[in-house]
This record gives sequence, C-alpha cells and structure tokens, in this order.
Amino acid sequence: MPRLIILRHGQSTWNDQNLFTGWVDVPLNERGTSEATKAGKLMTKHECLPDTLYTSLLRRAITTANIALDNCDRHWIPVKRAWQLNERHYGGLQGKNKAEAAEKFGKEQVHLWRRSYDVPPPENEQDGNTDPDGRYAKGGIKVPKTECLKDVLVRVLPYWESDIVPDLKAGKTVLVAAHGNSLRALMKHLENISDEDIPGVEIPTGVPILYELDDNLKPKGGAKGKHLD
Amino acid sequence: MPRLIILRHGQSTWNDQNLFTGWVDVPLNERGTSEATKAGKLMTKHECLPDTLYTSLLRRAITTANIALDNCDRHWIPVKRAWQLNERHYGGLQGKNKAEAAEKFGKEQVHLWRRSYDVPPPENEQDGNTDPDGRYAKGGIKVPKTECLKDVLVRVLPYWESDIVPDLKAGKTVLVAAHGNSLRALMKHLENISDEDIPGVEIPTGVPILYELDDNLKPKGGAKGKHLD
Repeated sequence: MPRLIILRHGQSTWNDQNLFTGWVDVPLNERGTSEATKAGKLMTKHECLPDTLYTSLLRRAITTANIALDNCDRHWIPVKRAWQLNERHYGGLQGKNKAEAAEKFGKEQVHLWRRSYDVPPPENEQDGNTDPDGRYAKGGIKVPKTECLKDVLVRVLPYWESDIVPDLKAGKTVLVAAHGNSLRALMKHLENISDEDIPGVEIPTGVPILYELDDNLKPKGGAKGKHLD
Repeated sequence: MPRLIILRHGQSTWNDQNLFTGWVDVPLNERGTSEATKAGKLMTKHECLPDTLYTSLLRRAITTANIALDNCDRHWIPVKRAWQLNERHYGGLQGKNKAEAAEKFGKEQVHLWRRSYDVPPPENEQDGNTDPDGRYAKGGIKVPKTECLKDVLVRVLPYWESDIVPDLKAGKTVLVAAHGNSLRALMKHLENISDEDIPGVEIPTGVPILYELDDNLKPKGGAKGKHLD
C-alpha cells in the first residue's frame, strides 16, 4: 500500500523573527532542530518508516529530513532533491518582516498576498545574482522574480507526476520534506481543496502528516492527512 | 576538469573503543563530528566544492557527508547511496576489540587479516538476520559473511565504472564519503598501488583528499591524492 508522509521543515531562524523567507536559504533554529528530532521518533513510533526521500534545495527542509531520518534509522534511504519542492518565492517581500511589509504596502494588501491563491507579491527588486552558487542553474531553472500559490502548483504537480508517483505506484512509503506552500500544493491535489480554501490551510512545522493512498493515489476513503503525534 | 574528492568518515564511537566495525552501523563520536565540520570548511577554503555526492549505506559516512556539505554550503547537491561503498565486512571479527581478537586467534593471524590483500577473516558466526531493516535486500544484496580487501575491490570498481565515472566524464567534482577499505580500493585503482602495498596505506579520518583527473580519469601527472589542510 502506497503511503505518503509530508513534513514541513522545523522552525527556522527567520520564522521566529517573523521574516518572509521564500527562497532565502536560512538554517533551522534550536526549536526547529528539536522538531525534526521528534518527527523522526514519531515515524518510528507509528511504524511509518520511509523507503525514499524527496526534499527541496533549501537547507531548512534538507536538515529537517537529515535529522528526522537519523532519528528513525532511515538515514540510508535514497534521496532526491528538487527545486520544484522549494517554498513559494515571495518576491519583493523576501527578507522583510511582516510589520515592515504592512507599513510599506498596507496591511490588507500584504494579507491578500499571503492569503490569496493567485495574486503574486511584487517582484524581487534585487538586480544582482539570485543564484550565487548555481544550484538552480544546474537544474535549468531561472530563479522566479515572485510567485503566487498557483505558480507553486504549476511546478510541484508535474514533478509529483514524473518522480513521486512512480515510487508510490511501486508501493513505497515516500517522505516529502518541504515547505508550507509546496506542501499546500500537494494537499490541494490530494484532498481536492478549493482555490479559496487552500491558502488558509495551516501546516504545522516538524509534524509528519500521513496519507494512506488507494490505487488511484488518492487518500483512502477520502481521509484527510493524519498528523502523527 | 574532473575532480574526485575522497573523504573517510570521521571517527566513530567504535574507532575509539578499538573495535572491528565493518558493516555494523555505528554513529560518529564527538571528535568525528568535529572532523566532518572541518572537512566542509577545508573544501570551501580550497575551492573544492562538490557537484555531487556518493555515500555508503552506513551512518558514519552519511553523517560525515551531511555535516561536511552543510559546512561548505553544498547541502543541496544530488546524493547517491550505494552498499558497494560500504566498509569491508570484517566477518567474525566485527564487534570484537583488537586485543580480544588477538587473544582468540593469535596476534599474527589478526595482523594478517588486517594487513593482507586477499585473506578474509573467519565468517560471521551470527546466524540471525544481518539485515534487520532490509537496507541491503532492497539493493538485491545478501550481506557477505566476510570480506578481504580484494573482495571490496570486486564490488567497488564496477560501481565506480557504472555510476561515478559518468559524472566525472561530465566534468563534475565528485565527493565520495566512505570508509578506509572502500577508499583504499579506489586509491589502488587510481594510483596503481600494488596488492602488497595497498593494505598498509593509511587514510586519515575526516580529511578530504583531492585528485585532479585527466581525460582517462587517472591522476594528472601521476600525482598522489592531495590532503586538504
């Protein structure tokens, strides 16, 4: 039986400063490290041990996966990393804190960018190199200037079909360690959540969420993801 | 220009207890963690940043690579894990300390097993499951009962040809994070070291060793690997 476990990265140093992060590559903070450790122990406790791992190209998801797998003795499973699983690119909001952004653009406008399905924030004003170590160029991707949630679905779902679906069809337990918005994209697809409702779905940091899937790779009995605790 | 970096795992909890480890999956100790951190900083300092990573299926090599890559900001590179890069299986010596083994089998005999090319130690006496989490079965491999260094070459070199060579031919910088004996197998191949000499070659823990390779994937000018420091 195919199983999908989605895992939002543990808290990062920018989460607790309330900054828009997006594609900025910040590390976990101490709480995030503990969350990742706990996530591994929960996968052991619930006998949800992944056969294979997918991560974004961002450190907070990669470190979360490394720590979680180390804590459930699955450090040795195959890994694939994909830019398609990255967080939504927050454009001109990246690096700003939420109060600063509200002051500059207005509170309601910022709320709209955060909580709409298809309204992207303003483009990144940064003219310089947004790919200094070439990690995106290697995947043939130009770093986006901004993204709305809908844009995230447009890159996540083809990757789901091409890479993750074959592993699930082979009956594997797949762990996807990623971000609030790339995981919302997967949840929207799996649970048929509407464009209106998906931006408001909250995914807790560091909590493995389990989907048991049927032959069509839809949640068995239409169930929501089960938070492991 | 293709470059190969070989990295023996940092010191493990069994290294400092002087136990034969082989395929037993022990973690790094504190010194090993520091060595791995330093290895990452050295790769940055020498501008030897890997494009892709190969590891064994053993925790001490995987953790060493995770820490080293995190410390040179290359956490995001593609990873392949292969049982072929595992340490030599030490058969009936695994889990014994070197004094205990000398007492049981004689000092000279143990020295012969450690330092000969083609004399395997006695087989693992353990009748039980030597693959409790199925990590080897998934790769279609039955855990060996014992191995000599020659046996290690027989599995490392075909993997080198099939998987690592294509990356090098594409001009990549490849990091192989593995073990004393699987790395001896690579060094023997690269530097044409004799059967007599190779068992005595010492590879320090946690030190990245760089080979700059020519078009035939032999070290440029016949040079030995350069220890980064």
